Amino acid sequence: MRENHLLFKSIRIKYRWRDTVPMMRFDLRARFTLSSDVSKLTKEFTQFIATTNETILKKEPEKLAVIEQFSIAKDSLALTIISEGNLRPHNALLQIKNALTKELGKSHHIGVRGITIETYTISFDLDREPLKDVTIPFAEVRIQGKHVTLLLTDVSEDFLRRNYIDRMINRVKEKVEQQYYEGKAEFWKLIWKSEEKQSAWTKDPTEEMEKLGWLKQGPTKGKWFYRPQAAIILKTMEKIAIEEILKPLGFQEVIESHIKPFDIWLKTGHMEGMPYEFYYIVEPKTRDAKDWERFIDLTKITKEVDVQELQKNLSPPAAGIVYAQCPMIYWSFKGKTIAEKSLPVLVYDATAISARYESGGRHGIERVDEFHRIEPVYIGTREQLLSLREKLLERYKHVFNDLFDLEWRMAWVTPWYLQQAGKIAEEDTQDTGTMDFEAYMPYRGAREESEWLEFQNLSILGDKYITAFNIKAQKSELWSGCSGIGLERWTTAFLAQKGLDPKHWPEGFKKYLKELPQGIEFL
Amino acid sequence: MRENHLLFKSIRIKYRWRDTVPMMRFDLRARFTLSSDVSKLTKEFTQFIATTNETILKKEPEKLAVIEQFSIAKDSLALTIISEGNLRPHNALLQIKNALTKELGKSHHIGVRGITIETYTISFDLDREPLKDVTIPFAEVRIQGKHVTLLLTDVSEDFLRRNYIDRMINRVKEKVEQQYYEGKAEFWKLIWKSEEKQSAWTKDPTEEMEKLGWLKQGPTKGKWFYRPQAAIILKTMEKIAIEEILKPLGFQEVIESHIKPFDIWLKTGHMEGMPYEFYYIVEPKTRDAKDWERFIDLTKITKEVDVQELQKNLSPPAAGIVYAQCPMIYWSFKGKTIAEKSLPVLVYDATAISARYESGGRHGIERVDEFHRIEPVYIGTREQLLSLREKLLERYKHVFNDLFDLEWRMAWVTPWYLQQAGKIAEEDTQDTGTMDFEAYMPYRGAREESEWLEFQNLSILGDKYITAFNIKAQKSELWSGCSGIGLERWTTAFLAQKGLDPKHWPEGFKKYLKELPQGIEFL
Repeated sequence: MRENHLLFKSIRIKYRWRDTVPMMRFDLRARFTLSSDVSKLTKEFTQFIATTNETILKKEPEKLAVIEQFSIAKDSLALTIISEGNLRPHNALLQIKNALTKELGKSHHIGVRGITIETYTISFDLDREPLKDVTIPFAEVRIQGKHVTLLLTDVSEDFLRRNYIDRMINRVKEKVEQQYYEGKAEFWKLIWKSEEKQSAWTKDPTEEMEKLGWLKQGPTKGKWFYRPQAAIILKTMEKIAIEEILKPLGFQEVIESHIKPFDIWLKTGHMEGMPYEFYYIVEPKTRDAKDWERFIDLTKITKEVDVQELQKNLSPPAAGIVYAQCPMIYWSFKGKTIAEKSLPVLVYDATAISARYESGGRHGIERVDEFHRIEPVYIGTREQLLSLREKLLERYKHVFNDLFDLEWRMAWVTPWYLQQAGKIAEEDTQDTGTMDFEAYMPYRGAREESEWLEFQNLSILGDKYITAFNIKAQKSELWSGCSGIGLERWTTAFLAQKGLDPKHWPEGFKKYLKELPQGIEFL
Repeated sequence: MRENHLLFKSIRIKYRWRDTVPMMRFDLRARFTLSSDVSKLTKEFTQFIATTNETILKKEPEKLAVIEQFSIAKDSLALTIISEGNLRPHNALLQIKNALTKELGKSHHIGVRGITIETYTISFDLDREPLKDVTIPFAEVRIQGKHVTLLLTDVSEDFLRRNYIDRMINRVKEKVEQQYYEGKAEFWKLIWKSEEKQSAWTKDPTEEMEKLGWLKQGPTKGKWFYRPQAAIILKTMEKIAIEEILKPLGFQEVIESHIKPFDIWLKTGHMEGMPYEFYYIVEPKTRDAKDWERFIDLTKITKEVDVQELQKNLSPPAAGIVYAQCPMIYWSFKGKTIAEKSLPVLVYDATAISARYESGGRHGIERVDEFHRIEPVYIGTREQLLSLREKLLERYKHVFNDLFDLEWRMAWVTPWYLQQAGKIAEEDTQDTGTMDFEAYMPYRGAREESEWLEFQNLSILGDKYITAFNIKAQKSELWSGCSGIGLERWTTAFLAQKGLDPKHWPEGFKKYLKELPQGIEFL
């Protein structure tokens, strides 16, 4: 309904916003559509607006927001609500709607039919000037110097209820900050390093294993088929991780699904962090063979897959293959209260297979789209986890020094959950944070100049996931952490330094694997 | 180009087909478009057709096909080719095109510009009358009694080259045969059964484990999260299968990808057999964060997944999660010649996770969408495999009788590869074929009336996959087979009979697992 200008009455109210330049300013122009003509109720509306400004929009001594102007037309009430952010005008608007409904219904039997948002303008200042343009959905972004204006048009009441506004503001700020961090080296600080070790060779173990027929590439990109000689090395790594690290520390095995629904990734931030790295899962719409008859006919006749016909029979994606195992372990504790005597909770999954779409960066078995990983997860008090970290480090050192005789180092790095959410780390407090374990890869060149391989990490994450999944303990405040053990990474780190001949392997490793199976011979 | 009737010259040729009713009849009416007016070349064309009928379409003493009629219009030559199947008219047509191109080019500098198929009619007889209508792609199907006529219109030269015609005929025959088998009980013949055993209880183990918190459903349909007490039982099953069956027989472990491309499923017949049971995989179109900016913005702002926006960034499906492990093991031998001394090849995968879209049929951990399976595959001579089957049966009996003390039986059933291709088995020769291992499930009711659980199978498949993947041996003729060991199935079969209390478990099993871990306690 368009405003009737003959009946238009606009009242500028005495309330005015303070004159200092605000950090943020919200300017919402909205209109209520009413069930009857209210053009004669100027006095009542003036009173209603005055009261609203003193009640809903004020919490003594502070003004939360202000209706700066209003106008009544035939059957509508238009408002301009201004705020510096203490109360978002869109939240105020929804409260005003309730109050208005009550007031008009009681005294005049008039109903509030709907809300139309004319414009919603949000201005705020950035810490620093953007280096380039920023866009976000749902608003036009105008930036002058450090000053941002978001212009929202075409906004529904439903949209306002969804509480997107603050996330839109944050997204603009975050994008500007990211512009400054782009291309910057990630945070990296050495904690410890082993002695230099004499390498058995300087070849790329994947290439050599392929030549020997121990490994076969495929059948899809970034995947490998491990023939017996390579398979047994990977499985030995699994055994060593379990026997030498996890069991001695009292970790218990769990088995999780390797199919992760979006709602878990939404909680952990993965969904927004690396959606371009997921392998997505799509289920059939139905299992009824009748609905698949044409697809089956086409496949039998053409011996090809008609992708268009196939897609008609598939549901939209709602899940993907595990990216890291810990989110589902947290999910398994969702909403639970853990008995004090079960703390610290020490569990690991060694079953779910992980997949990451690597695109151009694939190399050998060390950077692949599909890999096998053990992920221990620990939940306990801060003290329990800090003490556990020491014990874990001791066990890891035992394996990498005594069993593998590796040349390796540890460094503080950007915590993986920040990396994974596409964010940048500050220097760490070292209570929480992530350590990377890196191995020298002789085939890549001199130890000082070449890139070392991250073959392991260890994180304490504070209460981030504890809060996200609403996990509680009987009494204690909980923290959590995890440590990704990449079996392919352990394997290449070890083989890159020690070679493929078991004769030259360190004694500690040979206790687990002293000779390789015969494999299958081809002509 | 429409025919010019003024110039139309139709010649009925002396060659006629024999008068007996043929089993099959192909009638192809096609027209060549030529680069110049050929209406004056009647004599030359008559000669050309006569020669063609005596050369291309004849292999003494047999007529393979016949050009029964031809006509020349301004710049086109129309033909009617008839055959009883010895040479498919569409294949003949492509040969005639070559001959015509050569002939006209040489003598008259006229080129053949293209082929238009006017109609292509194929008639053949079925073994029995269809019970209901049959449709297939690319043709109208008319059936009278046992007589089928396929009418193809709108057919391109490219279509003819693709060789779909015979598969279309087969598809009609197959669909009619399937009508007779629909709803019929599958083939099942008892081979052996154990004594009756006293069950420890009659409860559904999944339900009880859920109550105890050993298992948690989800996070997506037909998946489970195994807490420590349940996880250790499943992992013990894996260990027993490897230690008691596979290692003693000399099987070597391999590790395959759990992502199976369509081309492997096309070779094995899975793609046409059970496309409605796959979990499909969809990869990102690109890993470039720029292309994902809008999706990431939307996710950060709405905290929901915008599926439409997501789908814009995804490639069409080209793979799915492993359904059974053996196809990829065969793929790993594709095109290889195996050294005689490596026979029989004995390998197994225990790593790839399987997924099957079960829809309504899900129950407990025994009928799930995601499961863990060991699949031994064996490739060798017929004698080697028949002898291996005996040894495998002996080891399986040892485990199910001596370690698990199970009540179970073995039966010959429809070979799984026929089942999976949606086909029906004949009674088996028992050289090749599939045995199912079934366990009595006390919670389902009386042993005579209730459905037993298939917890294991064993197949010898002849040369089916050997041929499909072109696998050769130095000298021997090869056969292959496989045996699916379902860990969830072993677990439920065992627990359904023996209960959850380790005190009541058989001694043989207790050698592998005599007590359960503490797990995690919740309030």
